[in-house]
Amino acid sequence: MNYSIVFYIIGWILNMEAAFMLLPCAVALIYREPSGWAFAVTILASLCIGIPLTIKKPANRVFYLREGFVTTSLSWILLSCIGALPFCISGYIPNPVDAVFETVSGFTTTGASILNDVEALSHCMLFWRSFTHWIGGMGVLVFLLILLPMTGGSNMNLMKAESPGPSVSRLLPKVSSSARILYLIYIFMTVVEIILLLFGGMSMFDALTLSFGTAGTGGFGTRNDSIAGYSIYCQVIITVFMILFGVNFNVYFLILFKKWKQAFKNEEVITYLLIILASTLLITWNARQSFSGYPEAFQQAAFQVGSIITTTGYATTDFNLWPQTSRTVLVLLMFIGACAGSTGGGVKVSRFLILIKTVAKELKLLLHPRSIKKVRIDGKTIEHETVRSTNVFMFTYILIFAISMFLLTFDNYDLTTTFTAVAATLNNIGPGLELVGPTGNFSFFSNGSKLVMIFDMLAGRLELFPMLLLFNKSTWKKF
Amino acid sequence: MNYSIVFYIIGWILNMEAAFMLLPCAVALIYREPSGWAFAVTILASLCIGIPLTIKKPANRVFYLREGFVTTSLSWILLSCIGALPFCISGYIPNPVDAVFETVSGFTTTGASILNDVEALSHCMLFWRSFTHWIGGMGVLVFLLILLPMTGGSNMNLMKAESPGPSVSRLLPKVSSSARILYLIYIFMTVVEIILLLFGGMSMFDALTLSFGTAGTGGFGTRNDSIAGYSIYCQVIITVFMILFGVNFNVYFLILFKKWKQAFKNEEVITYLLIILASTLLITWNARQSFSGYPEAFQQAAFQVGSIITTTGYATTDFNLWPQTSRTVLVLLMFIGACAGSTGGGVKVSRFLILIKTVAKELKLLLHPRSIKKVRIDGKTIEHETVRSTNVFMFTYILIFAISMFLLTFDNYDLTTTFTAVAATLNNIGPGLELVGPTGNFSFFSNGSKLVMIFDMLAGRLELFPMLLLFNKSTWKKF
Repeated sequence: MNYSIVFYIIGWILNMEAAFMLLPCAVALIYREPSGWAFAVTILASLCIGIPLTIKKPANRVFYLREGFVTTSLSWILLSCIGALPFCISGYIPNPVDAVFETVSGFTTTGASILNDVEALSHCMLFWRSFTHWIGGMGVLVFLLILLPMTGGSNMNLMKAESPGPSVSRLLPKVSSSARILYLIYIFMTVVEIILLLFGGMSMFDALTLSFGTAGTGGFGTRNDSIAGYSIYCQVIITVFMILFGVNFNVYFLILFKKWKQAFKNEEVITYLLIILASTLLITWNARQSFSGYPEAFQQAAFQVGSIITTTGYATTDFNLWPQTSRTVLVLLMFIGACAGSTGGGVKVSRFLILIKTVAKELKLLLHPRSIKKVRIDGKTIEHETVRSTNVFMFTYILIFAISMFLLTFDNYDLTTTFTAVAATLNNIGPGLELVGPTGNFSFFSNGSKLVMIFDMLAGRLELFPMLLLFNKSTWKKF
Repeated sequence: MNYSIVFYIIGWILNMEAAFMLLPCAVALIYREPSGWAFAVTILASLCIGIPLTIKKPANRVFYLREGFVTTSLSWILLSCIGALPFCISGYIPNPVDAVFETVSGFTTTGASILNDVEALSHCMLFWRSFTHWIGGMGVLVFLLILLPMTGGSNMNLMKAESPGPSVSRLLPKVSSSARILYLIYIFMTVVEIILLLFGGMSMFDALTLSFGTAGTGGFGTRNDSIAGYSIYCQVIITVFMILFGVNFNVYFLILFKKWKQAFKNEEVITYLLIILASTLLITWNARQSFSGYPEAFQQAAFQVGSIITTTGYATTDFNLWPQTSRTVLVLLMFIGACAGSTGGGVKVSRFLILIKTVAKELKLLLHPRSIKKVRIDGKTIEHETVRSTNVFMFTYILIFAISMFLLTFDNYDLTTTFTAVAATLNNIGPGLELVGPTGNFSFFSNGSKLVMIFDMLAGRLELFPMLLLFNKSTWKKF
């Protein structure tokens, strides 16, 4: 382990967080809120650690995948601990475990909250909560790559550790240029959403925070009833943007470079949109009795399906009360998740595509043992390596899921609550069913269970392995 | 597809079933029950199809894995349909779907019942119900191999399709000799259990039926309260034998040939026993308040853990009322299942061993990308082929699970009932939680849901692929 470069990058991450916190400070100034001081104090604390770590450039620039993974997981943990300070200092969330839970939930774009009354928070706190979604959505290290171009394999190894999905495709020869373009697309789409929401008569503050939540596919709202209180127009805009932010960003990249054919033939995105359409129609039919008619049922179904599959977690209605088929469809969508290379979580559509195609191949192989068939997506052969790591991912995922669920049962809540609480945190969604349903929250869990779910949220966002490596003794060996 | 040989074997299976039915006929004679006629009629029907199919030996003896799979799945389906006739003819189970459900549940050693009142059945019906467990436990085709030695690859390809576990090890050079020894061990252990139960003062009828249920890890009892009404001695004997029948039979084979060292170092069996021990201790502690004291808690926990992990499904207590942690441990055990090469179902301990070792290997590989590490079990390197097919198995399993669960939700029962109903049938266990818990049964589901669960039980017993291939068009092509 090359500690010097790991600490150097972590230092920069802390400096960056201090810079990010200037925004909630500004919000506090605008609304003249005394709780803004909590941010000023945290900025100082953050810089006190960050600046000393970044003064000296590390001599040893060796940077393997191992360093990438450790840097990523440590950065996210530190980012969350520092990010939780304002909640603690201001007294809005006095229990440190709760504060870290809320912040991890923010950065990992989960949106699961321990707050019973969101509306009690000051504007600057609400702003920071939503802003963490936006920062975490595209990734902090990806952002750092734009500011701090590094040499050698460092870029790719950091990108690999933080980007969601089974494989990272090189969009441009230089990783930092790709990162810049991705962030520009991200900012552009967020701005478009803000403008469209302002058109719908939303206040600037709400438009900003809700757009941050949508862009990062996070799900923190600023009201106790999430999105239910806004107009149908605003709900539709948010539905569309949730789905758009769940699309593989490579497609936008291709559109930007006018490679239309490639962009519109992306198998993952087509499958993703078909799943959304099918689920929406099924729920519209199945849950129609919960609404005034088919149009309302369709609009609400589309919102909930978009919210769950992209792992955003906004709610406009209490789907806890829907029939079992609709509830189960939502639970299944929780696991599928959004596209790889989007800001969404879950297992990802492309992984399921790879696995389904592998099963089909295997069935063929049983019938014709000598046939040679490869798994292809978008016409390209999927490397054996990717298939293997997808399989390993799936099983690791199941293991973490089972262990987390087991640990949570000691709180003795019903199976559906426990099961969906793990599903909602490990897949970075937010709400689950029963007690953790859209009208509930996570405050009633014990601190131990909250720590398990903090781990799950981070593991889900960083795609399991970076977090697991922290528990491996040989990770920490010097070389 | 070589149809002539497929039909030839199926014909023999039907003749064999007719022979098996002579036993319940004898029981009917002893108890002078008129419902015995239902068996006589079924025997005739069975022979009417079976004999014509077996008169002419097939000229074309080409027999690939494909033929093995199709023969296996068709045999099991026919076996169940014919086996269901006595229930229908006698009027004990008038609905044909229910009768097939009960028989499939018997042959696949699931033990899930649609009967509200088991005690209303006549002795010959109860005997047949339990006897199907015994037949299905070791496998019908394996039995056929002893009687009807075939040439070429036929033996191995039939054995592969019917035997549980990720790989079939050749115990002896001749497959039919292995099959004979396996069946002898099976009969020997069943007889020992019968004798020990008779010692405990159990009636001959109960000792026979309960031993059949234990040996096949089935779970059908002859009383409405399953095993709860029997003495502690009998419960302990059944606990021990359930666990013994869940052990990989290769171990008994090795003991028989005095290869002690190999037998006692079997990693799968050691893991299996450790899981049983750990789960029993955990439940003893967690559910102690449901019992009079630690000794009773331990005995009951051991019984339930043994019953669930071996997928037998006998019950002595209503574990629905246990705390969540104990309930969740049981649910997790449902998925783990027994050892490969035993009569138990589930995913199998060896598959989990392979997968866990693959994850460990992958973590190592992330740290040391150039290291060469192989997955080993019992000191032997696991072939890449086996790892791959284990992964494919897991994902196919998840897919079938998700689709079944989705289809069952249309009956609109709660999530825990639906989830554990699928888990209990796909893993061939029997009882689940809530409505399908140990004091409930499966009668309330719609016919459609019952058909889904019939498929699940067969898919679970035959390890997914034989059943899936039936739905593949190119399976049915002549060559």
